[in-house]
Amino acid sequence: VWMPLVRQSHWHHPPHSQKHREWEREKDSAPTEPDTPSQQVQFILGTEEDDQHVPHDLFTELDEICVKEGKDAEWKETARWLKFEEDVEDGGERWSKPYVATLTLHSLFELRSCILNGTVLLDVCANSIEEIADMILGQQEQSTEFDEHVRAKVREVLMKKHHHQDENKGKKLFNIAHFFADESKKPPDLHALDKPGEGSSAEAKNGENQETGTMGLSKAELRFLKKIPAGAEVSNVLVGELDFLQQPIVAFVRLTPAVLLSGMTEVPIPTRFLFVVLGPEGKGHQYHEIGRSMATVMTEEVFHNVAYKAQNRADLVAGVDEFLDQVMVLPPGEWDPSIRIEPPKNVPSQQKRTMPGAPDDGASHSELEKHSGPELERTGRLFGGLIRDVKRKAPWFWSDFRDGLRLQCLASFLFLYCACMSPIITFGGLLGEATDNHISAMESLLGASMTGMVYSLFAGQPLTILGSTGPVLVFEQILYKFCKDYALSYLSLRACIGLWTAFFCIVLVATDASSLVCYITRFTEEAFASLICLIFIYEALEKLSHLREIYPVHMHSKLDLLTTYYCKCEAPTHPSNKTLRFWESNNINVSGIAWENLTVTECRYLHGEFQGPACGHNGPYAPNVLFWCCILFFSTFVLSSFLKKFKTSRYFPTRVRSTVSDFAVFLTIVIMVLMDFMVGIPSPKLHVPHMFKPTRDDRGWFINPIGPNPWWTVLAALVPALLCTILIFMDQQITAVIVNRKEHRLKKGCGYHLDLFIVAVMLGVCSVMGLPWFVAATVLSITHVNSLKVESKCSAPGEQPKFLGLREQRVTGLMIFVLMGCSVFFTSLLKLIPMPVLYGIFLYMGVSSLRGIQFFDRLKLFCMPAKHQPDFLYLRHVPLRKVHLFTVIQLVCLVLLWAIKVTPAAIIFPMMVLALFFVRKMMDFCFSKRELSFLDDLMPEGKLLDSAKNEAKREEVTLAGCWGWTLPSGCEISCFYHMKGLYPAALTAKAAESQKERAAGTVFAGCLVYLHLDQRQRT
Amino acid sequence: VWMPLVRQSHWHHPPHSQKHREWEREKDSAPTEPDTPSQQVQFILGTEEDDQHVPHDLFTELDEICVKEGKDAEWKETARWLKFEEDVEDGGERWSKPYVATLTLHSLFELRSCILNGTVLLDVCANSIEEIADMILGQQEQSTEFDEHVRAKVREVLMKKHHHQDENKGKKLFNIAHFFADESKKPPDLHALDKPGEGSSAEAKNGENQETGTMGLSKAELRFLKKIPAGAEVSNVLVGELDFLQQPIVAFVRLTPAVLLSGMTEVPIPTRFLFVVLGPEGKGHQYHEIGRSMATVMTEEVFHNVAYKAQNRADLVAGVDEFLDQVMVLPPGEWDPSIRIEPPKNVPSQQKRTMPGAPDDGASHSELEKHSGPELERTGRLFGGLIRDVKRKAPWFWSDFRDGLRLQCLASFLFLYCACMSPIITFGGLLGEATDNHISAMESLLGASMTGMVYSLFAGQPLTILGSTGPVLVFEQILYKFCKDYALSYLSLRACIGLWTAFFCIVLVATDASSLVCYITRFTEEAFASLICLIFIYEALEKLSHLREIYPVHMHSKLDLLTTYYCKCEAPTHPSNKTLRFWESNNINVSGIAWENLTVTECRYLHGEFQGPACGHNGPYAPNVLFWCCILFFSTFVLSSFLKKFKTSRYFPTRVRSTVSDFAVFLTIVIMVLMDFMVGIPSPKLHVPHMFKPTRDDRGWFINPIGPNPWWTVLAALVPALLCTILIFMDQQITAVIVNRKEHRLKKGCGYHLDLFIVAVMLGVCSVMGLPWFVAATVLSITHVNSLKVESKCSAPGEQPKFLGLREQRVTGLMIFVLMGCSVFFTSLLKLIPMPVLYGIFLYMGVSSLRGIQFFDRLKLFCMPAKHQPDFLYLRHVPLRKVHLFTVIQLVCLVLLWAIKVTPAAIIFPMMVLALFFVRKMMDFCFSKRELSFLDDLMPEGKLLDSAKNEAKREEVTLAGCWGWTLPSGCEISCFYHMKGLYPAALTAKAAESQKERAAGTVFAGCLVYLHLDQRQRT
Repeated sequence: VWMPLVRQSHWHHPPHSQKHREWEREKDSAPTEPDTPSQQVQFILGTEEDDQHVPHDLFTELDEICVKEGKDAEWKETARWLKFEEDVEDGGERWSKPYVATLTLHSLFELRSCILNGTVLLDVCANSIEEIADMILGQQEQSTEFDEHVRAKVREVLMKKHHHQDENKGKKLFNIAHFFADESKKPPDLHALDKPGEGSSAEAKNGENQETGTMGLSKAELRFLKKIPAGAEVSNVLVGELDFLQQPIVAFVRLTPAVLLSGMTEVPIPTRFLFVVLGPEGKGHQYHEIGRSMATVMTEEVFHNVAYKAQNRADLVAGVDEFLDQVMVLPPGEWDPSIRIEPPKNVPSQQKRTMPGAPDDGASHSELEKHSGPELERTGRLFGGLIRDVKRKAPWFWSDFRDGLRLQCLASFLFLYCACMSPIITFGGLLGEATDNHISAMESLLGASMTGMVYSLFAGQPLTILGSTGPVLVFEQILYKFCKDYALSYLSLRACIGLWTAFFCIVLVATDASSLVCYITRFTEEAFASLICLIFIYEALEKLSHLREIYPVHMHSKLDLLTTYYCKCEAPTHPSNKTLRFWESNNINVSGIAWENLTVTECRYLHGEFQGPACGHNGPYAPNVLFWCCILFFSTFVLSSFLKKFKTSRYFPTRVRSTVSDFAVFLTIVIMVLMDFMVGIPSPKLHVPHMFKPTRDDRGWFINPIGPNPWWTVLAALVPALLCTILIFMDQQITAVIVNRKEHRLKKGCGYHLDLFIVAVMLGVCSVMGLPWFVAATVLSITHVNSLKVESKCSAPGEQPKFLGLREQRVTGLMIFVLMGCSVFFTSLLKLIPMPVLYGIFLYMGVSSLRGIQFFDRLKLFCMPAKHQPDFLYLRHVPLRKVHLFTVIQLVCLVLLWAIKVTPAAIIFPMMVLALFFVRKMMDFCFSKRELSFLDDLMPEGKLLDSAKNEAKREEVTLAGCWGWTLPSGCEISCFYHMKGLYPAALTAKAAESQKERAAGTVFAGCLVYLHLDQRQRT
Repeated sequence: VWMPLVRQSHWHHPPHSQKHREWEREKDSAPTEPDTPSQQVQFILGTEEDDQHVPHDLFTELDEICVKEGKDAEWKETARWLKFEEDVEDGGERWSKPYVATLTLHSLFELRSCILNGTVLLDVCANSIEEIADMILGQQEQSTEFDEHVRAKVREVLMKKHHHQDENKGKKLFNIAHFFADESKKPPDLHALDKPGEGSSAEAKNGENQETGTMGLSKAELRFLKKIPAGAEVSNVLVGELDFLQQPIVAFVRLTPAVLLSGMTEVPIPTRFLFVVLGPEGKGHQYHEIGRSMATVMTEEVFHNVAYKAQNRADLVAGVDEFLDQVMVLPPGEWDPSIRIEPPKNVPSQQKRTMPGAPDDGASHSELEKHSGPELERTGRLFGGLIRDVKRKAPWFWSDFRDGLRLQCLASFLFLYCACMSPIITFGGLLGEATDNHISAMESLLGASMTGMVYSLFAGQPLTILGSTGPVLVFEQILYKFCKDYALSYLSLRACIGLWTAFFCIVLVATDASSLVCYITRFTEEAFASLICLIFIYEALEKLSHLREIYPVHMHSKLDLLTTYYCKCEAPTHPSNKTLRFWESNNINVSGIAWENLTVTECRYLHGEFQGPACGHNGPYAPNVLFWCCILFFSTFVLSSFLKKFKTSRYFPTRVRSTVSDFAVFLTIVIMVLMDFMVGIPSPKLHVPHMFKPTRDDRGWFINPIGPNPWWTVLAALVPALLCTILIFMDQQITAVIVNRKEHRLKKGCGYHLDLFIVAVMLGVCSVMGLPWFVAATVLSITHVNSLKVESKCSAPGEQPKFLGLREQRVTGLMIFVLMGCSVFFTSLLKLIPMPVLYGIFLYMGVSSLRGIQFFDRLKLFCMPAKHQPDFLYLRHVPLRKVHLFTVIQLVCLVLLWAIKVTPAAIIFPMMVLALFFVRKMMDFCFSKRELSFLDDLMPEGKLLDSAKNEAKREEVTLAGCWGWTLPSGCEISCFYHMKGLYPAALTAKAAESQKERAAGTVFAGCLVYLHLDQRQRT
């Protein structure tokens, strides 16, 4: 009866006769163990640690030698491993790229056989390579082939000098002679000190050498030394062909304690392991492969621990067996072994191999939990959330300033200052137009600056950037028109509304209403963010195309007729009544005017007419300006994108690249301003007010909320204030959610309540001072966050730099708004900045904010044939038509929102964003929960891929914990989503239960569903 | 004594007690064989083939089933292999990307054990799955656990319906209801026919089903069917969990003959192999992995052959062992097994595994040999090379026209027509300026058209595009000035020189001088090509910047003063003597002119002056034109680059993408012309003559070579003719070498002698007709070649499309020049094309021709830190400083050449190209032969990587064969290089010897070294 699949089956071996004898021998040497290698390894690693057997980080170096009759030889470093393999390129005299070591199965089995049959010396105490050599040689059996003479020769070989790759690099650079000759490489006599027989006390020598060692290191070696973690030890693998040997010598030595064998390793670090394979001539390649296998195995996490803890040869063999059990195999016909595989982005944890039953990615789960946990809990006390926010953020306050003192922050601040100025001023200008200059650019600057400074100093999430939003503008327009029609004081009424709004917002803070933001799912968030980005892009292009009207172009001009072209001012031939009245009222003597000599402005003022072949619709054609603006606009976009991408190019050192990339936008602005200045075409420029005073003389910096208005207006203001509150709340919190996304790995936490509180207070202040209101601006905030990303720098060769988080600090935000306030004082500099350059920057910001929005990835799928679609996780798990359906729904929502946002109906825009929740709820009927979990998940694609294997498990638990409840309609999905974020699989259903106890809700603006989940259950 | 490394060692097995028993059993079942698996496999594959055991291509399908109590189950296709693995994405209902199957070592050993212990039925004759099932079940041992009842149930399972992934794809697309429900997928009853017990005669059923099968296939299935090579057979792998089984059933069946088991496989192809693993519940994943391993092993070339030829179980086991021997292993800690590895660009040949001692890449070598072989051999007879060329090309003549009837050729022709027109006309214009219109645009058009047509029809390499070159222009300028100074007839003297040059060129053809092109190494070729490309780019930019003078821009205009701007014509205040004389001679009444009303041209003609604030240096400012030209120029460049790259984007089906990419430049021109037309700015346009007559009326279409000149000028013309000959020869042949590069994989061969002959004849004709001379134009030819590249379309999923070669035909070339001749007739259309668009196209051509030039890759290395440098082969084998030195020398040569080319010294330019050979010779002193073989090799990078392993071997042979000779100085390197190209390693030194006999040389223009290597030795 054959049933290996049923029983615990392991692998079998090919039927070679010689195997049999080895097998018999194995039986004698290693006692029969019933455990699998995996169990053995778990047992070995489970033993208690003593001081000498604590695993350290390991650096492995492979040195090779080839001793032939009559030739001088030395050990030559041929490869090294910190995490991945780096080879010495023989001809190229350089290190290869780090790569995933592909080994042959053959050499691994040979390695196993080496350990099984070779000398194994564990916990040897030796101070020099001489002692070690003696010990190894002492273990070899004496025979006719291996006599004293050979022994001495082998000892001599082991003493040979070691030549390391980086040693003579520094020198060669300065030695021009090397350029012109194919010199035989003679290594410098750097390690003359280490020649055998010279040292007195090994210990003293070690200390000394560590000094001289570090001193004598080349630049390349020093740089490499920095990459090795502190406390690391070395494992030296020495393989070689010796022509006088008849049989191979194999030895595995573990030194206790680790000893600095100077000259042996390229960096002065003590050696812990030594693996020696010396054999007769002709099998060099085979030995090389065994050496590589040993080094790779030693680099591997689990075997490395086994090597530190092994008690005997059998433990080491078990380690190799366990390693073999875990390897992946590439079939010969499908892969070219000469390709060096690039190290993967991240390697799965090997923990499960050492601890059976341990969760696969427990670490990341607890991390997730920590990140999204307490901030959004409802406290049930008045201002409970606010107090918690303050308590949470207070300890970080000083570090928020210390952490800001970085070059990257300077780059970020310069970029965002330029980016923020233009919308604030444009907004002010538009507001001025709409309100007859009651509130204009100066007020906008002052308000933004004040609000921004206070927000940056005290908010919960200072990375959010405040700005002006479209709906506010629409609201002010309507309000001003209303006041004008009913002869009310606009500024006073506005102050009332503002104060009410501030009050409502503070009520929302008091009731912890911000905890409702957890109902904002990826669907809503992406639809909102996409919309804002698209509007940004649209407006950039729209403003550019608007220049066509300001600077009309003579399209079909004939170059030959240029001499006949002119555009003169003339007295109107048939002056309209309005014109006549104007002349009269201003006492203008029409006949006394030299019309022909008037400039464009004068002519317009005097209601003259433009006449001539070079006149456009309402003024002379402006030559060159429009096309020059187009060139500026697109050049700015292309240049800033290019400079930003420069970071990932191959050119120049990392430092240069990342600096250029950080300063990309600022550099672009500087370059473009210089270009514009040099060319001198009169392109439109940024106009900053140059005096610190209200735009209209009939208003001051303090507005009486009642003023000339009747008293009941104070109460009537309550109604528009409610609308404003929704507007402010939605704009502020959705942006905050985007900034506080889990994938940004914020360490200092967020503070939704505190954010809203500060916004509310400043809203009140601004209202009383007659300044516009400011809330979080989505695109600017995303740009700010993106400009503050930090990646790990010093990692083992081949390891990908990791996204570590953001520079969470208050300095950039503060500086942006301080400088904005001071802008009045350097108007002369700012007025050099051409507007098209700023539009180009907007285009860049819009486009770069769109990147990373999954919705757009999904949109692109429509144009891709299935076989070209990227390997997104959701495409593996959700049918394509469902993905498309999801995208189409989102697209329709987006189009509707757009339609509302750009029409005067923009005032109901926040309501429509709320409507997104309901759309999302409806989607529950056409999508399964599983599909939604993939399509509407908070976690970024990368994270999802990591935890793909846990998907099924986690889903069950979440569903069990969440879907079992009966929630008021409209909230299930959000809740499910929320729960998923907070309580992933690792926490069992029990955790979900306790969450249930804490869940609670509140009424919000008659529009959010009233969530009153058994408040009493809390007790 | 332990010495596995010394003896033939294979692998060992871990010490598990249970192994022992298996081992003992193995010993009994498989007779002890002394051979290694590799030897066994070679023995098996060496057996004679009979009809039934010829290996076919294999398509492997993995179907799985999971039968549980009370649930209906069916076989579900989960993966398939044509060359790489494709999985069914479970949730996504789609095929994954093809990837390299990474297997666990564990499952491979289990597979081995399955074959060793399961049922193996070879050469079974069965007509239906029923018969096969009976046979398999008949082989199972009867036991209490496996009784008749279970047997019947297993049989039933094997009969179950098979569900294939692509089956219901077509339907779902049209079924909207599916969009809104999470329907349980019920497969359509496509295979109702195939249910057991319904068929009558299996044979008849097969035929019938093949019909209905193909009929009933979905679109996706039909598309996949096309990818399967003709004559392929299927191997079905069936694995499943059956809850009623107590022990696994494993069977490997080879059917003889192959039988179409309808419904079993997704495509109607007969099944040859069947591998079944059915086991008890709970080990589904294990079975799946065994199934994948089996499928992967079956897909592998060598095992696949073994499977066809195996005589017994032991042969199969040997096949698996041999497979295991060849696998590469990925260590667990360095790789994430969930990553699907992309298939590599090409996989090394597995031939060496089946034929010991066979050369590694013999195939590619013989191919190389074929390509560069006979064309350049010296025949030793007068016109021997020319006759051979004609003989070689004649059989292809008709196919040259048939092959041209492709859409790609249309695209190529339209693009190149536009690209060629402008330089020809520009050149004509410049020539007209230089020669007082003796030879101008009309002559240039006619000459180019005539020469081009004849060349395209009869040349050896019709892919070369003829054009005008800078040195010719310089030569004509000098000649015209000389004639003017000495009062000689320019056209007659030119005709003499032209006829002499044609004569010399024909002498060069007669003496097979073109065989000297083999001395053009990559160093020379790249320096020359880079230079021409850079000049192209430089000229494009230079012409654009030249527009600044033609269309001056009013830089610092004030928009407000636009009303006061004008530029009028006025009578000159202080007319110069010249002006006065002009007025006098033309009888112009100055006072009678209305100066103010004159147009620009009139004003210039009458020597008026421009006055006014809108006047520039020498005329009125041209508004908008310059900036509009810039926009056109860069838009053209960006758009054409983008459209060209569109081929490799992920969007739209391949057909659309490749069409857009082929037509990229033409589309760009059309779009830009439309844009320019719509905007209407008077940008400069292409001006084509609109009448077919000589530009000057005092000349005809036939020039008397003596004419008014004294008789001795005919002889004196001999001297400049020699210079011209060098010029023509170098330009023509270097370009031809670039076009005929081995990496272009030309199938119809080249014809250097024939090319030169046609050029010479047409040069004579053009001289007598007074037209300019035309030779091969490097950049246009490269562009032409690039636009005709063909890649393989139908390849197995995951296989990279291969570059197959070029569309070698005469149609595109012919059409370009025919249409060019006809251009006179559609001037009205051509004059819509703005010049900046054509400049943009030049920039694009220059930049895209630079790509792929190794010199530029090496230049880039200067800016790259070592760790970011790409993994070029030469970087692995040559020290970086040597690479840099090589680049610097090349750069210096380039700069010198540039300096000569752009100054009037351009006439000696061809000499300087010759000087490159000597520079290359000097480099022999600072570089080793090995380094030069890497840096100065003909073969493209890709090819080099393939044959990296042979490098050493080949080098030895080449050196032995080539460096042993004593050659006249100056030719060694070229010869070495030549030898290397012609006779790579596979041919031994003997071949090199025979080459030596054939080697010969000739004197050439007093500058090439006379090579007369023992002509008598030939006999």
